[in-house]
Amino acid sequence: MLTHLPLCSIPNPKKVLLVGGGDGGILREISRHTFVEQIDIYELDQMVIDVYKQFFPEIAIGYEDLRVNVNINQGVAFLKAVPEGTYDVIILDAFECMGATAIELANKEFLESVARPLHPRGVMSAPADSFWLDNFIVEDTIAECRQILKGSARYAWSTIPSFSWTIEFVLCSTVGLAVDFEKPINPLDTKNNGVAKGPPKFYNSQIHTTAFCLSSFAKKVGSAKF
Amino acid sequence: MLTHLPLCSIPNPKKVLLVGGGDGGILREISRHTFVEQIDIYELDQMVIDVYKQFFPEIAIGYEDLRVNVNINQGVAFLKAVPEGTYDVIILDAFECMGATAIELANKEFLESVARPLHPRGVMSAPADSFWLDNFIVEDTIAECRQILKGSARYAWSTIPSFSWTIEFVLCSTVGLAVDFEKPINPLDTKNNGVAKGPPKFYNSQIHTTAFCLSSFAKKVGSAKF
Repeated sequence: MLTHLPLCSIPNPKKVLLVGGGDGGILREISRHTFVEQIDIYELDQMVIDVYKQFFPEIAIGYEDLRVNVNINQGVAFLKAVPEGTYDVIILDAFECMGATAIELANKEFLESVARPLHPRGVMSAPADSFWLDNFIVEDTIAECRQILKGSARYAWSTIPSFSWTIEFVLCSTVGLAVDFEKPINPLDTKNNGVAKGPPKFYNSQIHTTAFCLSSFAKKVGSAKF
Repeated sequence: MLTHLPLCSIPNPKKVLLVGGGDGGILREISRHTFVEQIDIYELDQMVIDVYKQFFPEIAIGYEDLRVNVNINQGVAFLKAVPEGTYDVIILDAFECMGATAIELANKEFLESVARPLHPRGVMSAPADSFWLDNFIVEDTIAECRQILKGSARYAWSTIPSFSWTIEFVLCSTVGLAVDFEKPINPLDTKNNGVAKGPPKFYNSQIHTTAFCLSSFAKKVGSAKF
């Protein structure tokens, strides 16, 4: 979901940056997108890659995509150094224990470092706080994203048993035409599985739209349109 | 969801039978429906009711609805004895440890005992096996429901943190016009909260539709249209 929600929402994404995601699963999912020409991954820990290649080859298969450039380095530092407007999509696959929480996403300096390397109408995709949490601050995060990235911003969710009952995301675009994340304009070519062994097990266009339907209690947390 | 999915899907439901659900939460949700004239509950254990009334009054508040008739007795035995076509909606709030699993729902005799007391175009709503299970047999359940209740049948899901990551349902109608469960024709009157203290925290019309959107892997389990 962290991959297809942004990549299906904008036309012809060519350059993708993945920060984290060393297991290769997101690379595998990006590989299904025919428009993508370049996939750069910044992973801190080589061991993550090695372990997944040895024990979870069906996930690490993402590394077999010839468009992938692997960098064992700090993605956050790279974001600050990369030329302006380089990427169409930046996927942050980093969770609470790694630092990129919703609090981090509401950090002005961090968001500026993500906005700068994004192409106009480029999109950022990142995990966000769960709506089941007591200290749910996503309204602030969304407001900050809108202000700094200067485009559309939405809150989305899905379900994944291995993490918790639900997983939430924030999606933001930069300056330019508005992006309607809820209605994918660049649907997956289901005949092309990239390096994956078959079509996506979870994602489909209906599930894409569903990710933006929130329960009443989650909607009511704030007045901002998530 | 076990309440609103059936009650919003058919016009003017008047008589509702609840089997199980002694905590009162489903009664509270039924109480929001203005068309309902009679709510019969069959709960096996008086202690469930007493404990909820003492410790969870915001859930047990459902018993304050004057349309509720409480019966401490076996709901399954009652189903076999009640006159044909009595109810518009039958809600089975019984989970695995209580006997009404998907296996139970696929039992011909049990389904016949639910079909008989239902009014033509009446609807049954019940929990069903999770699509995350290895031994997912819902395709068989749905097929059996269609054959015995002779109406529409759909598989739905939602998320609820206190039970597990997801919760699944089966919805079936009896003979008569088809029921399109995905598109509620009898939306909740949001100005009427019945005996509840406010509007539903979770349910809304968007969430209703979302309940029928399945991931690709769940859809692929069988050829039947869930």
